[in-house]
Amino acid sequence: MAVSEEPTEISTKPGVSRRTVLGAAGVGIAAGIAGGAALGATVSGRGDGGASSDQIVGFRGDRQAGIVTEAQDRLHFAAFDVITDSREALVDMLKKWTVAAERFTRGEETEDGGALELGDYHPPTDTGEALGLKPAHLTLTIGFGPGLFGPSMVDPARKDRFGIANRKPAALADLPIFAKEKIEPGRSYGDICIQACADDPQVAVHAIRNLARIGVGVVSVRWSQLGFGRTSATTRGQDTPRNMFGFKDGTANIRAEDTDTLDKWVWVADSDNPPAAQWMTGGTYLVARRIRMDIEPWDRANLLEQENIVGRLKGSGAPLGKEGEFDDPDFQITSYGAPIIPATAHVRLAHPDANNGAQILRRGYNFTDGSDGFGHLDAGLFFIAFNRDTFKQFVPMQHQLSRKDAMTEYLIPNGSAVFAVPPGLKPGEYWGQHLFEG
Amino acid sequence: MAVSEEPTEISTKPGVSRRTVLGAAGVGIAAGIAGGAALGATVSGRGDGGASSDQIVGFRGDRQAGIVTEAQDRLHFAAFDVITDSREALVDMLKKWTVAAERFTRGEETEDGGALELGDYHPPTDTGEALGLKPAHLTLTIGFGPGLFGPSMVDPARKDRFGIANRKPAALADLPIFAKEKIEPGRSYGDICIQACADDPQVAVHAIRNLARIGVGVVSVRWSQLGFGRTSATTRGQDTPRNMFGFKDGTANIRAEDTDTLDKWVWVADSDNPPAAQWMTGGTYLVARRIRMDIEPWDRANLLEQENIVGRLKGSGAPLGKEGEFDDPDFQITSYGAPIIPATAHVRLAHPDANNGAQILRRGYNFTDGSDGFGHLDAGLFFIAFNRDTFKQFVPMQHQLSRKDAMTEYLIPNGSAVFAVPPGLKPGEYWGQHLFEG
Repeated sequence: MAVSEEPTEISTKPGVSRRTVLGAAGVGIAAGIAGGAALGATVSGRGDGGASSDQIVGFRGDRQAGIVTEAQDRLHFAAFDVITDSREALVDMLKKWTVAAERFTRGEETEDGGALELGDYHPPTDTGEALGLKPAHLTLTIGFGPGLFGPSMVDPARKDRFGIANRKPAALADLPIFAKEKIEPGRSYGDICIQACADDPQVAVHAIRNLARIGVGVVSVRWSQLGFGRTSATTRGQDTPRNMFGFKDGTANIRAEDTDTLDKWVWVADSDNPPAAQWMTGGTYLVARRIRMDIEPWDRANLLEQENIVGRLKGSGAPLGKEGEFDDPDFQITSYGAPIIPATAHVRLAHPDANNGAQILRRGYNFTDGSDGFGHLDAGLFFIAFNRDTFKQFVPMQHQLSRKDAMTEYLIPNGSAVFAVPPGLKPGEYWGQHLFEG
Repeated sequence: MAVSEEPTEISTKPGVSRRTVLGAAGVGIAAGIAGGAALGATVSGRGDGGASSDQIVGFRGDRQAGIVTEAQDRLHFAAFDVITDSREALVDMLKKWTVAAERFTRGEETEDGGALELGDYHPPTDTGEALGLKPAHLTLTIGFGPGLFGPSMVDPARKDRFGIANRKPAALADLPIFAKEKIEPGRSYGDICIQACADDPQVAVHAIRNLARIGVGVVSVRWSQLGFGRTSATTRGQDTPRNMFGFKDGTANIRAEDTDTLDKWVWVADSDNPPAAQWMTGGTYLVARRIRMDIEPWDRANLLEQENIVGRLKGSGAPLGKEGEFDDPDFQITSYGAPIIPATAHVRLAHPDANNGAQILRRGYNFTDGSDGFGHLDAGLFFIAFNRDTFKQFVPMQHQLSRKDAMTEYLIPNGSAVFAVPPGLKPGEYWGQHLFEG
């Protein structure tokens, strides 16, 4: 896209934000575009990746976008502390967030002309760094942490500030302590999370930043994490990406097309909660784990060790003893009397066969956050997973992995959080409506 | 790209790395590709953005790539400490780095089959996370810091470990302390830098990581920085991007086409150095500054204040009082007796008119590194600039800006480094050859 020829004066009509105009019309439009017809014509004439409308993921629906949506390449994830005790202020912010979030996913500013046209003497309502950028398949997914409902790891003495303790779903609670983890509170927990996924990181960062700005006085950024490359495929059409160990990651992930599996292992059902927590029906639970990888020692491990740890070939991603990436692993095959997929291999211990059939939907991202001060890159996997009941799926799986998985020698989980992710919004609804008005 | 159907066996011929095969051939190739002809045919048949060869920036030439090369969207910049006193070990590493770096820019592994084929009992020579990815216009640019030649800010008592003190160019020295900066040693300085720019961040990260791996025992990562979005245009064909203040950045940047300006202000000439430092002729000096932006207070400043600080309109980027982004600013225009571009405006103080005509070539990137623990995003500009003599160009400019620029209220420079960037390599040459063999 090119925004260098932005006219200094645009007649802005309701519903046509400057960002839309910029994003849709591109280079060389003359000052004074007035009508929707001219704009529409220009939209279809773009040659750099298609019309903006092609890059819009619908914000409303039965489910929130950003869960089974085809995984975008970039991530900005933010966890917020709620710093007010006022239920009214919190609900008011959630309403404003919903309006803004829906606009961001359409490639629009916080308000029409928000960055530039609210009058010289007011702070802009949009920070402007996404002016001219396309929607980039932005999805914004909200979740509510245990601390929103009362006591949690962050503050075990916290009161039920918002009168919603009785609406807390049974499956929403802080994770237990797992073996060998080194959880840092400054990278963990949170009352609300926003997961922003997009093709363009500037679009994801812009969304998080503006939600933080809108929330001033109500929420405060507790931690945030950028991910530069997806490590999951979430649809059958996507290739399997590689993680920072150099291995394909997520080969056996649940995909959007696996609706029966999603119903069984991802989406919360009516029967999962008492009436007061039915607002979660159709939602899911998000587990976020910042997993630092000890990549330098890993890079000195030989290929056989690496493949035995993972239980797959590094090249093809095939399970050891098999040929194709999507072949089912066969845990019975032996070689010289020993299982060809070792007892400590990640693929064995994470497999449904070793977890009472349990599966989770993964949506992780590679990260590199500079270096650690000791000569190493601070790199790893920002693990995100969705499941129907964290304590029946992720937690037992992780207990097993943290104790037995050979890979843990190279992993330092140092961030951890869980959030209840409500279902999608119907027209006119706001984020959290069924939690606060039920 | 799709790598999911990688065959488990490939007959690897010299010069055809597995990564090339993967990257070029894509989906569904059957096991047993043997000939270059088949490979070539497949290359031209790719439909997802063009053949890999379209994405290769030449590694060798009169200048290093990554300076006036059209700015790629993503950055990974790393500064290394040299941890050996052995000149031989350092030179040997630089030779290995050169071979690997050139290969990475072609979309190849460290060695043919380096990730997968060196035998099960050896550590792979490539970490593998870029298998199947395209060259992505990767450029790798090397620079040498003051500490390589002896005493520096990092170690004022350091000896001339490599016998090159007499070859230190006059213009290579640590920056002075500027007003209002808060330089953190852990984000500053370094004996060697590598700037990796690419369309795909995973390709840039892979290159830095593998150079660090190759350099084990010789160098250690001192600091590294990812940038998610360019803030510079370096060719006339590129649009001007926006920085985290929401403003267009780099409108008045030098462009690749401005060869006279580059010769005057960027490329080092014979006459700039005594004979012992002629290895720098045709090179340039890189200044790196990590500039944290106080974005939350900025976002509460009104539009008029923001535009008066920058001296340009936020929308179009036009200088105040003008209409087009590329109009020359007129510092004489007044309104009610006051200059319409304030005396403290960034555009006025950074303009050549206020700096004895001096210009610099900028190549910066937006960053967001999580949050700061106080509820704010740790976001800003990773400023990179190239100039012919840092002490005649960047330093006086920065002294002026740090004392007078109204923008400094919102800036916290906390990382700082300078490097001598030699000219490009002729065929067969290695990085640093003319420094160490002159």
